[in-house]
Amino acid sequence: MSRYEDDSLALHTDLYQINMAETYWYDGIHTKKAVFELYFREIPFGNGYGVFAGLEKIIDYLEKFRFTDSDIEYLRVLGYGDDFLSYLKEMRFTGTLKSMREGELVFANEPILRVEAPLAEAQIIETALLNIVNYQTLIASKASRIKQVLGEEPAMEFGSRRAHEMDAAVWGTRAAYIGGFDATSNVRAGKLFGIPVSGTHAHALVQTYKDEYTAFHKYAQRHRNCVFLVDTYDTLKSGVPAAIQVAKELGDQIHFIGIRLDSGDMAYLSKEARKMLDEAGFPEAQIIASNDLDEYTIMNLKAEGARIDVWGIGTKVITAYDQAALGAVYKLVSIEDGAGDMIDTIKLSANPEKVTTPGLKRVYRIVNKLNGKAEGDYIALDQEIPQNEEKLKMFHPVHTFVSKFVTNFEARELHELIFFNGVRVYDLPAIESIRQLTSENLELLWNEYKRPLNPEEYPVDLSQNCWDNKMKNIQAVKVQQ
Amino acid sequence: MSRYEDDSLALHTDLYQINMAETYWYDGIHTKKAVFELYFREIPFGNGYGVFAGLEKIIDYLEKFRFTDSDIEYLRVLGYGDDFLSYLKEMRFTGTLKSMREGELVFANEPILRVEAPLAEAQIIETALLNIVNYQTLIASKASRIKQVLGEEPAMEFGSRRAHEMDAAVWGTRAAYIGGFDATSNVRAGKLFGIPVSGTHAHALVQTYKDEYTAFHKYAQRHRNCVFLVDTYDTLKSGVPAAIQVAKELGDQIHFIGIRLDSGDMAYLSKEARKMLDEAGFPEAQIIASNDLDEYTIMNLKAEGARIDVWGIGTKVITAYDQAALGAVYKLVSIEDGAGDMIDTIKLSANPEKVTTPGLKRVYRIVNKLNGKAEGDYIALDQEIPQNEEKLKMFHPVHTFVSKFVTNFEARELHELIFFNGVRVYDLPAIESIRQLTSENLELLWNEYKRPLNPEEYPVDLSQNCWDNKMKNIQAVKVQQ
Repeated sequence: MSRYEDDSLALHTDLYQINMAETYWYDGIHTKKAVFELYFREIPFGNGYGVFAGLEKIIDYLEKFRFTDSDIEYLRVLGYGDDFLSYLKEMRFTGTLKSMREGELVFANEPILRVEAPLAEAQIIETALLNIVNYQTLIASKASRIKQVLGEEPAMEFGSRRAHEMDAAVWGTRAAYIGGFDATSNVRAGKLFGIPVSGTHAHALVQTYKDEYTAFHKYAQRHRNCVFLVDTYDTLKSGVPAAIQVAKELGDQIHFIGIRLDSGDMAYLSKEARKMLDEAGFPEAQIIASNDLDEYTIMNLKAEGARIDVWGIGTKVITAYDQAALGAVYKLVSIEDGAGDMIDTIKLSANPEKVTTPGLKRVYRIVNKLNGKAEGDYIALDQEIPQNEEKLKMFHPVHTFVSKFVTNFEARELHELIFFNGVRVYDLPAIESIRQLTSENLELLWNEYKRPLNPEEYPVDLSQNCWDNKMKNIQAVKVQQ
Repeated sequence: MSRYEDDSLALHTDLYQINMAETYWYDGIHTKKAVFELYFREIPFGNGYGVFAGLEKIIDYLEKFRFTDSDIEYLRVLGYGDDFLSYLKEMRFTGTLKSMREGELVFANEPILRVEAPLAEAQIIETALLNIVNYQTLIASKASRIKQVLGEEPAMEFGSRRAHEMDAAVWGTRAAYIGGFDATSNVRAGKLFGIPVSGTHAHALVQTYKDEYTAFHKYAQRHRNCVFLVDTYDTLKSGVPAAIQVAKELGDQIHFIGIRLDSGDMAYLSKEARKMLDEAGFPEAQIIASNDLDEYTIMNLKAEGARIDVWGIGTKVITAYDQAALGAVYKLVSIEDGAGDMIDTIKLSANPEKVTTPGLKRVYRIVNKLNGKAEGDYIALDQEIPQNEEKLKMFHPVHTFVSKFVTNFEARELHELIFFNGVRVYDLPAIESIRQLTSENLELLWNEYKRPLNPEEYPVDLSQNCWDNKMKNIQAVKVQQ
């Protein structure tokens, strides 16, 4: 990527965004205020909740947003006119962004982000926003799901080599950390984001020194904390015995943390290795496992009584292997009309779940004050104030007869103001606080929503006004057709 | 990512690489010459071949490889000593790299890259090399597989919003282009790599102007080439009629390329839309489809007689959705001993397919001079010269009784010299040449190797010497245990 010194992310967009911006500009409506909401329609992995990540990168992207000289030159070659390009050259993000905080639990069909900006700006940033949120939220959600199966046992993210190029390796492992993972093997991510780093040695060390005894010995000469990888030749016959021998010989000179298993039958090998370590007087030595692990293999290993203390998880978390994409979308919900009033917009579809919900909206988490648990999320129009209600009616947005009344509740608004008219007004929390937020949020949910298989559906309801407004808009379009 | 102005990719590695490098450095063997080979063990997607991509990024990474001041500071905080850090600070890539060219067809268990470098350097670059090759080769292979189903029909890569963060969006679409895709929607990728860009407008344009007729009209005022998206409200009742009306009214003022379908039943809608376009006098107007397409949905749509001319493919190609990771590995095959001689190394495993093949090797494609088709690939030890053989024995490396003799052949060596002792000696071809290479390489393969379902296994054989050397090394380790 050395062709352009001034490579910028403003051009990291789909061509049709530029074409639409040009249409608006030519028509003189490019500065009309438009409101877009970003949300996904289905929680990935059949999980009961998602975990939002991506805001830090979005803030950086929006703050630096500008087309460089070479961007403009490239667009000129594509055929765009000077007048429009002059406009683009001056374009900055001047809009208002509301967003959930990173680490917030998020469910289907609720706006994660809300962009209010001049139409052309709001359009051009769509692709990058989706690119960022779709990936990082996918990985934070996957990591949290895996941690549900692990409980307090540590999970290490080891997947850089299988990540989808370099940004995914670092931002993905940050998302995994937000989702509850405990460390990363990626040193650059450690530096950039302040995540704990973890790792000792690979098979190549053993191959270099020919035998495990020598390799472990050499490693221990320079490193006090030792985890020895024991499967280069034969785990139980050569690897574990060599680790024990070196640990015995060096005694207090090293901290013998344990061994790592990286191939073979993890259930059998971990149980046998556990016995060998215990018998050798190392009951504290941990067994670390890494070999294409995910929540399913982990559940099976635990069911089989595997003696694994620490889990190294790579491919399956960093690529979200079993569902490698989140389908968040970015939809226009309101736009300024000729008179300067905001008019709601809708998109219909042959698939009812793809019909958008018009209007500016806010998202509230309704927390029962008696037990501290969430009753569901409540999406209301911008001007509604559910906090003031004594008794809140919550009903299913499709099966509307499924309803309940909630009293003695706290309605916590989930959106924070991030940018106001182009100026950032939000300070990013430290990564540890974000991770803590995820963990605290999970306490709000009943376990029924958190189990990996067939979780109960968490209610995400529209307010009566919001629902009525949607029906009115659907009707208006149908009459028009 | 704005925390460090001097963020570098040298730190984009697993922590254990640094720990191993430190061990070698402390032991004084860090400059020993080591040879690593990079290869995968299984072709993804059940395909009959893979397509290599990633070399351009690797070259850039190796040329720029150096730890920055903040990298060194971070490592110091982690506890590494000044002496070792001084060594890292001066580290550059001084090794020799041989590699297949991008666009080369590649099969399981053949070295794609061969790194000969001082041990510590070769170790530290492992993670980045795998990160790059695994992703880019995965996508190039997926794209080529999809193109096998499409034949001459154009494929557009539309997946930036679902890519795994930003690097994946741009490098992924470049890989898809190498694999045979025809254009990308990502403008930045178009600029960086010289790939054709494609795209017109989204649903938001129609929502903005409330109805399709107005939206298409406005778009057409500024853009001569028009593809109208017709599914915002009702494809056949409002979208297609509006497109036809605008095309008729504007006549020669625009180039009415066609319409795009983005939801609903693509088979039915495309056939109906085709009739409507034909009846309206637009038999040349194309129908572009985009909606979670991959090789399977495309085959089904074609079988059902769908009338689709151009295919927009996003999520399923840019994430390689059905198999989102390639498992290439990087293994030590030879290392300098104390006397300065190169000694082969091996890694055993309980899984026989994970046993490495020792020694420096070269890969040849054996092309039959009579018909111009490939007989298979032939992996020989570095010093062997298969080109000089009159009659080449090729046998299956596992089922060794499966063998054949080949005469009248050309043995084309697949590795190019890229770096020699740290100096780049290879000029990257233009992207169009790389894409052309993929296409020419596919001509070498019989169709039996190219069909998407249950392709015949393409032979990748070891030379007798290479096979004998592997057995000898296995025996030597087993005796040692």
